Amino acid sequence: MSREKVYNFSAGPSMMPESVLQKAGAEIMDYKGSGMSVMEMSHRSSIFADIFSETKAKLRRALKVPDSHEILFLQGGATLQFAAIPMNLMGKPGCADYAVTGNFSTLAAKEAAKYGRVNIACDSSDKGHSYIPKELSLSEDASYFYYCANNTIYGTEWKHIPDVGDRTLVCDMSSNIISKPVDVAKYGLIYAGAQKNMAPAGLTVIIIDKALAGRELPICPSVMSYATLIEKDSMLNTPPCWCIYMLVLMLDWLESIGGVEEMEKLKSYRAKLLYDQLDESRLFIPHAQPDSRSDMNVTFRTGSDELDARFIKGASERGLLNLKGHRLTGGMRASLYNAMPVEGVEALIDYMKEFEVRHNV
Amino acid sequence: MSREKVYNFSAGPSMMPESVLQKAGAEIMDYKGSGMSVMEMSHRSSIFADIFSETKAKLRRALKVPDSHEILFLQGGATLQFAAIPMNLMGKPGCADYAVTGNFSTLAAKEAAKYGRVNIACDSSDKGHSYIPKELSLSEDASYFYYCANNTIYGTEWKHIPDVGDRTLVCDMSSNIISKPVDVAKYGLIYAGAQKNMAPAGLTVIIIDKALAGRELPICPSVMSYATLIEKDSMLNTPPCWCIYMLVLMLDWLESIGGVEEMEKLKSYRAKLLYDQLDESRLFIPHAQPDSRSDMNVTFRTGSDELDARFIKGASERGLLNLKGHRLTGGMRASLYNAMPVEGVEALIDYMKEFEVRHNV
Repeated sequence: MSREKVYNFSAGPSMMPESVLQKAGAEIMDYKGSGMSVMEMSHRSSIFADIFSETKAKLRRALKVPDSHEILFLQGGATLQFAAIPMNLMGKPGCADYAVTGNFSTLAAKEAAKYGRVNIACDSSDKGHSYIPKELSLSEDASYFYYCANNTIYGTEWKHIPDVGDRTLVCDMSSNIISKPVDVAKYGLIYAGAQKNMAPAGLTVIIIDKALAGRELPICPSVMSYATLIEKDSMLNTPPCWCIYMLVLMLDWLESIGGVEEMEKLKSYRAKLLYDQLDESRLFIPHAQPDSRSDMNVTFRTGSDELDARFIKGASERGLLNLKGHRLTGGMRASLYNAMPVEGVEALIDYMKEFEVRHNV
Repeated sequence: MSREKVYNFSAGPSMMPESVLQKAGAEIMDYKGSGMSVMEMSHRSSIFADIFSETKAKLRRALKVPDSHEILFLQGGATLQFAAIPMNLMGKPGCADYAVTGNFSTLAAKEAAKYGRVNIACDSSDKGHSYIPKELSLSEDASYFYYCANNTIYGTEWKHIPDVGDRTLVCDMSSNIISKPVDVAKYGLIYAGAQKNMAPAGLTVIIIDKALAGRELPICPSVMSYATLIEKDSMLNTPPCWCIYMLVLMLDWLESIGGVEEMEKLKSYRAKLLYDQLDESRLFIPHAQPDSRSDMNVTFRTGSDELDARFIKGASERGLLNLKGHRLTGGMRASLYNAMPVEGVEALIDYMKEFEVRHNV
């Protein structure tokens, strides 16, 4: 199978490697001679159990997840975790520190306030969330410190693991997981919606220090209880089987190109190409401050809404899709997740140069 | 593409029509010339918005859902709804009536008790959940009456809509939705995990009377608030896009064979074939009482665990898969969801006859 050549800069769901889609397509009617599609398999069958455990093992290997931590494959996205995290980890009467550096951390802090006291440890809204604050104001009695590693909408990324002493670190890595190595042992809980770097929408990956389980509030729904989910190995109820299968294909592909170590080089190279172009440009203005720039989501604008719209429309006409910024920010956003080829970034840069010339700057 | 011929009697996830899988396979790399897989599409893009609204419209048409009711496409399965329903509908201090006729209604009642008072309106556990009770003991102050229309594990099915006066009816239709017409207007809320009759695992369909929204407890997570989900048209966060797309293919297939009206005839015919065989058999014993038999899940046993195991193993060897009963019940279970061809039931009956002869009964 072949297809029209497009580069999809969507902030998620997003591009997948052609080889992964080809493999999924080849197996969609008949997985390994079973006579069944993965979509038709009982989640309790041995054939699916093999897919499930292989996916877990490969993710564990890719991120060097220590034995202290369990991997869960769940549903509900980040928005479900916004509630599950405080209900499981805050205690009663509880408190937690939240770093507010974008839209998703704002929403997470707001949701957590339903279940306890939220201390805002930092807040970058004073400058349109264009930077990652260097100072944190931590509270004495917080059960955990929460931050979002990459701010998809504003295009900023934490370049360091925040120093919060012996507090439990909780991190939303939805938009930069498996783009680089991560020292998992430093985290109490990492979670990520799969639909950016990992798999189709509908899967949420949790990596949790098992020592944190079992502290949930009595009102915590069973489907959100980490203790229950660990005990049931993610199968309290039917998991999103197809998405898990797609994840193992993605992990095979990641391994084939050298794992997260190679991906880190690739994503840095890809982002640098685009940021260099932005820094040279007399038309396009990057949004994020240089030391806080995300390698996953590059945000920029011309300063004219009309010109932005013309740029986005022209891009779309040549197969450079979904460059429109989030409705909260306007402007442009190029999401460069794992599956974006360097050629996609080069095609975008060529178009940006042409567009500058055409608009006489 | 062709494949090994098997009949998959799994209780869910379960069989899908070959034509549906073929269509999904043909489009997996490139949906309608877009250059993208449905798995890669932004859920906010116009191309996916068309798939989303088409799916909703077709489900509305298939079940004749009145304008008073909204359709939601969510994640989290029945287990999430076990908590969402009381948190949204019970009120505070609240009460609800639960009919306990199987495993899922037992779990639903247990979860609801976290959020208010649960009155058990009936309980069929005295006879191994082999029947649907005729009498209900309703409480005065219940905000709603909850039941599970089809008990997947025990193989029983409500043949009537329970008479609960002007109380709000809430129904788990996970294992018999779109197998027959349903008078949606009589229900406050219908929900169904998609992985039996509708789509791959990872999608939960809710059909809710909009007048019921907006009564959630303050501790209700945003991702469970029906009011919020209705307001956001299921897009509070990224929905399970691929499953929604698979649902529209399933609905196209359903429409092509005559809709739920024809499906009702087909599923009754299919189930009758098997129940007639069970009633004639001198070896196999059906579990459910005749007036409570499910057309979706047919449960039976030989009376000997050893013989049951031999039957299941032999079935599997000839491509009659997943006939093993649930671990709570043992014995056999043949799930006959929408996509099960009559030939599958005939092949099972042929094997049952052979097995009887071979075991000298």
